[in-house]
Amino acid sequence: MADVRKLIDKHARDVHQRIRRGVKPSMTLPVRSLSNVRYRPAEGYLKITGKKKVRTLTVNTVKTFAQTLRMLAMSKELIATGRHSTKREAYYQAYNWGAAAFGSQEESATVMDDIEAMLAVNREQIHFRADEHGGEVAGELIVIDRDRRTRRRIEIDCTRFGSGAYSVPTVVEELSFRTKAKFILAVETKGMFERLQEEGFTHTHHCILVSMGGVPSRACRRFIRRLADEKALPVYVFTDGDPYGYFNIYRTLKVGSGNAAHLNEYFCVPQAKFLGVTPQDIIDYELPTHPLKEVDIKRARDAIKNDPFIRHYKAWQKAVEQMLSMGQRVEQQALAKHGLGFVAETYLPEKLRSRAFLP
Amino acid sequence: MADVRKLIDKHARDVHQRIRRGVKPSMTLPVRSLSNVRYRPAEGYLKITGKKKVRTLTVNTVKTFAQTLRMLAMSKELIATGRHSTKREAYYQAYNWGAAAFGSQEESATVMDDIEAMLAVNREQIHFRADEHGGEVAGELIVIDRDRRTRRRIEIDCTRFGSGAYSVPTVVEELSFRTKAKFILAVETKGMFERLQEEGFTHTHHCILVSMGGVPSRACRRFIRRLADEKALPVYVFTDGDPYGYFNIYRTLKVGSGNAAHLNEYFCVPQAKFLGVTPQDIIDYELPTHPLKEVDIKRARDAIKNDPFIRHYKAWQKAVEQMLSMGQRVEQQALAKHGLGFVAETYLPEKLRSRAFLP
Repeated sequence: MADVRKLIDKHARDVHQRIRRGVKPSMTLPVRSLSNVRYRPAEGYLKITGKKKVRTLTVNTVKTFAQTLRMLAMSKELIATGRHSTKREAYYQAYNWGAAAFGSQEESATVMDDIEAMLAVNREQIHFRADEHGGEVAGELIVIDRDRRTRRRIEIDCTRFGSGAYSVPTVVEELSFRTKAKFILAVETKGMFERLQEEGFTHTHHCILVSMGGVPSRACRRFIRRLADEKALPVYVFTDGDPYGYFNIYRTLKVGSGNAAHLNEYFCVPQAKFLGVTPQDIIDYELPTHPLKEVDIKRARDAIKNDPFIRHYKAWQKAVEQMLSMGQRVEQQALAKHGLGFVAETYLPEKLRSRAFLP
Repeated sequence: MADVRKLIDKHARDVHQRIRRGVKPSMTLPVRSLSNVRYRPAEGYLKITGKKKVRTLTVNTVKTFAQTLRMLAMSKELIATGRHSTKREAYYQAYNWGAAAFGSQEESATVMDDIEAMLAVNREQIHFRADEHGGEVAGELIVIDRDRRTRRRIEIDCTRFGSGAYSVPTVVEELSFRTKAKFILAVETKGMFERLQEEGFTHTHHCILVSMGGVPSRACRRFIRRLADEKALPVYVFTDGDPYGYFNIYRTLKVGSGNAAHLNEYFCVPQAKFLGVTPQDIIDYELPTHPLKEVDIKRARDAIKNDPFIRHYKAWQKAVEQMLSMGQRVEQQALAKHGLGFVAETYLPEKLRSRAFLP
């Protein structure tokens, strides 16, 4: 990881020197949009491509320019004091910036995005953090953290939470891990997480269970990525069999999303594989379904046409087309038709054994 | 807590005996609606009053009747095997009930609500559970649970999670607690939770910190209630200063809600007191605000007129009227205007010392 303080100093020094030389200072930022993104499997994520914009200090840009510099200074101070600030807190701290105070929270969020993209770091590295849950974890994993106050090393044994779980913090950069688990299983809902806990799945299959709680937050994605990288663990993903599960949850976890492309490098999990529920599972396991909604059909057709990730994989195109021709979606919990224990005793073991994952 | 299995047996036996005597069987259920609810502070929650409806077995009710009996049987089996089922799982298990299978998930949810109301128990006692997060906990508390598999006693020390937290399970009935904490502080957002963790607040003030994550889920409310009851702890609530914080979050936590009135007895936290952010705090602490939205104004006016809880307390009426006359709402994070540490070092200690809570 780059030394962010040095990066900040470098950018500030550039601006300072240009001003002293009597030259208008400027900042160079990558363009953040879907049109400036590509997917290559070797890279593993939706990557921002070359287009850049240059912001030069003028009458029109002076406020944004000042805000960017002050926010860089705020970040430097946060790093020095070991604190992290949410977006909202940053916005309110800027109340004391006089003419450079933000007009709205959207304004402060944009400046924060610009800084991330300019320094090519993620928000957590410049000590800003999201205000969102980070997912829940149970199973054969020891998380190593430090006590906030004493800075002493703490070992958090995720087998010892009973019916509860370890809640992932929003900043996971300083965590490290110890585990003998064979894989990570990331599931869509807390309901399925607790089902698998109740069935003792992490014990019988020596795995780490993560509840994403719908679309995984940045912290949840980063946690899985860091854990999978450091411990060379495979990652299997288990969601509902519908466009929301396939694209919003799985695709986002694996390769990131279009509108935050400058971040995908840190938050993608390229080693993720899709376990289920697939359209074919509906047939193989005789599962109860619901008809696709109009919005599902639109979303699926759009993905086949425009989503660089889906377009890249024949297997995904086939699966999405099969879903469309069946006109049906399926929920994870539909497996309960065969009894509450079926998912842990039959479905997941069979899928893991067959290794018939979607890429 | 009633022995639920005996209760189920009793209801089933009544139906069975009436059939054997050649009498039409029937079930008696309380009416679940706002018009059948009252608030008395001594009771501490929005309580369902006398109105009942009788459901007699006829051609029109035969399907619901059969579903209710089969779901009672499902519940009895869940209790016997020590499992819990989500609503969704119950719906899919019922696929094998032939003519009694549910037509939709709403249908199964209604039968579940009826059974809760009829037995006067909560869903968790009949071994059904919600599919939702249960909130996060850190601070001076040891939660005592059992290992799922070995049934051995587990002690979960909530001071030892570093930057992470203990995630509350959806069923908390079997947990017990050990603590020397002086109070529970329940906060609206994960962002504020992590702020107070970072400032070491639970250590300096010997308290237990709970992140509700917006409107507290059933599990979160039940967790706070059981902990506060068993350990005789005061509960202070810290939300944004807006109608959503006052009514949707605080009012729901303290006395429950109208449309689930048969449950409020278990899920309310009558000992809860509102710490802030109050409209008066905006003045006292010179906080940045946002104008009230149209929907906020409507919600506040409606509460003064119709909400039995707000109508009961002069102090709340005054606060809501002050908010309306100022036309402003305030976020918890606005305190960051005075620096990130201000909330932990100045605001909360002053509010706790003055004891100027809203009821």
